[in-house]
Amino acid sequence: MIPNINFTPGPSQLYFTIEDHARQAFKDGIPSLSHRSKAFEKISAEATEGLRELLNIPSGHQFYFTGSANEIWERIIQNLVENQSFHFVNGSFSKRFFEIAAQLNKHPKKIEVENGKGFDEHIQIPPDTELIAITHNETSTGVSMPLETIYGFGKKNPDALLVVDAVSSLPFPDFDYSKLDSVFFSVQKGFGLPAGLGVWIVNDKCITKAEKILTKGISIGSYHTIPVLQAHALKNQTPETPNVLGIYLLAKVVQDMIRRGIQTIRKETEYKAALLYQTLDQHPIISAAIKDKSYQSKTVIVADCGEHTDRITKFLIEKGMQPGDGYGPAKKTQLRFANFPTHSKEQYELLVDSLNAVRS
Amino acid sequence: MIPNINFTPGPSQLYFTIEDHARQAFKDGIPSLSHRSKAFEKISAEATEGLRELLNIPSGHQFYFTGSANEIWERIIQNLVENQSFHFVNGSFSKRFFEIAAQLNKHPKKIEVENGKGFDEHIQIPPDTELIAITHNETSTGVSMPLETIYGFGKKNPDALLVVDAVSSLPFPDFDYSKLDSVFFSVQKGFGLPAGLGVWIVNDKCITKAEKILTKGISIGSYHTIPVLQAHALKNQTPETPNVLGIYLLAKVVQDMIRRGIQTIRKETEYKAALLYQTLDQHPIISAAIKDKSYQSKTVIVADCGEHTDRITKFLIEKGMQPGDGYGPAKKTQLRFANFPTHSKEQYELLVDSLNAVRS
Repeated sequence: MIPNINFTPGPSQLYFTIEDHARQAFKDGIPSLSHRSKAFEKISAEATEGLRELLNIPSGHQFYFTGSANEIWERIIQNLVENQSFHFVNGSFSKRFFEIAAQLNKHPKKIEVENGKGFDEHIQIPPDTELIAITHNETSTGVSMPLETIYGFGKKNPDALLVVDAVSSLPFPDFDYSKLDSVFFSVQKGFGLPAGLGVWIVNDKCITKAEKILTKGISIGSYHTIPVLQAHALKNQTPETPNVLGIYLLAKVVQDMIRRGIQTIRKETEYKAALLYQTLDQHPIISAAIKDKSYQSKTVIVADCGEHTDRITKFLIEKGMQPGDGYGPAKKTQLRFANFPTHSKEQYELLVDSLNAVRS
Repeated sequence: MIPNINFTPGPSQLYFTIEDHARQAFKDGIPSLSHRSKAFEKISAEATEGLRELLNIPSGHQFYFTGSANEIWERIIQNLVENQSFHFVNGSFSKRFFEIAAQLNKHPKKIEVENGKGFDEHIQIPPDTELIAITHNETSTGVSMPLETIYGFGKKNPDALLVVDAVSSLPFPDFDYSKLDSVFFSVQKGFGLPAGLGVWIVNDKCITKAEKILTKGISIGSYHTIPVLQAHALKNQTPETPNVLGIYLLAKVVQDMIRRGIQTIRKETEYKAALLYQTLDQHPIISAAIKDKSYQSKTVIVADCGEHTDRITKFLIEKGMQPGDGYGPAKKTQLRFANFPTHSKEQYELLVDSLNAVRS
């Protein structure tokens, strides 16, 4: 039996309207809609213009659809880095981004700190850095980088592109997109959609950089280069046959979120995060894995449960809640709790009540 | 209003069981299932082992999931070609495969014939060819390459990998996979699934070739290289969070097709194709676009409708049938009709009756 409430950080619980939207999609023939039709272009525009409105993204930024955020890591390195990117590494996903740059035969550099730690805002970035890769929210450990720290690295390195992996944080963070050159996410986390779609946001500087690398005769890929994606995005199309149903569901969920109000979503996220962190602070046998409050993620909250991990997991499942396992080496000692827009205040209240009922 | 019967060659009409399977998927929590769970591994194995049984694929061939067949074009060139591939080009899609090799800075060669034509079986392939790229069924024009011709090119060039694009033909062709090194398709055509998933089949020679190129220090990609895909496939997993719902629906449709019987599906495809080609042969104002019967596709049947194209389209839509537009330059003079397993004999009988009712 599958617990009713799913706190794993991704694929996470579906946004509560998804099943209805999927039913309507089948009724309207969306799953077999041609991606070269006017109807598809309208859906695609609804998704991207909806995201622009919801997240307050400037009109100059473009949206591209990919198969996954993994793909976007690769496309960013291919399209935006000739030689050298610089990566902030403090967990499995930020490390993977760095490794991908090396696999593509670039020469990435990094500052690496222990899992669970944040970064000093005074870190010096090497002068030849073409692109700064920051993972806003390290899904593996629950560490978030404060927005002002991100903007600071951009300000001090104006010649580098500033790229933010917001896979497990959007739509929560209120980014100032005018200070970011590229941001990306996948839909199966904060947006609560079935997996199989990544969204890549880029500004003009990214388009120019990709064209510049291509002019030098360096391959930047084939069907998913920025110039090809851009040519299709201008028509609200994609180069390949995309996940049409996924784009439709994204459009619908974004409209639902606009109606609910992004401020409401953000306030509720803050409230639920405060509730859980407070519970962890006061708990006799479990505690927040991230001690420094300035780095605590609001959207992926990680609890140190030590030897009690297995028992707490079973207890929560009995109560109808599925916690996320700790990631990698922390699988047996930590639990992760997604705090996404689909997780209601009532679900979080049930979660903290249940955690409070766990005693040694 | 959307016509009930969709003959566009892709995304095409959904397989008739898809909507029920999708409903069950939501009931069972599939769209938010973790891709690292045992439940996912089971679904993934059901899809790949089902395909192996349905298509009679040898145990040594492996299955990898990608975002699209477009992606597979790129991955094939990255992973299997160090310098030179050879492409049979006779339409938009075979041409695109060739172009992708050039975009990835390889040195592809080609034999190109007019759209709508087939290839002489005596064509000489250059001696340094590492990979022969054949489009079994050119979706843009309705030309198919006979299987014996494909095998012949493999036999005469044993040092080259023989790769077949079967995007719009499978599951119909009864390939002898022991004679093919790699075959691929996307799910929104013959399998009748929502778009957003490609399936890539490779043998040991492909794995060895990718490893050999990598050993030379040439980049073969990052998260979707053959070695990385293979390591995950052995666990029935994928490197990235994949289109889990798509893989589930593929597993279910493949099981449905196994129950129906691949021989039945193939015989019905032959019957429907014969019915439509016969109608076109005898029709006063429309005719088969491909005159040479040995090259006529059984799964994408193209009709020359000339000046009557628009009128016939409207007439068919009125009768509840959506024909596929001609591709590219043939948009105003041809119609394409998908003949996939989901298209019933009754639907084809209705189609030919309606075409017979069209007079000048």
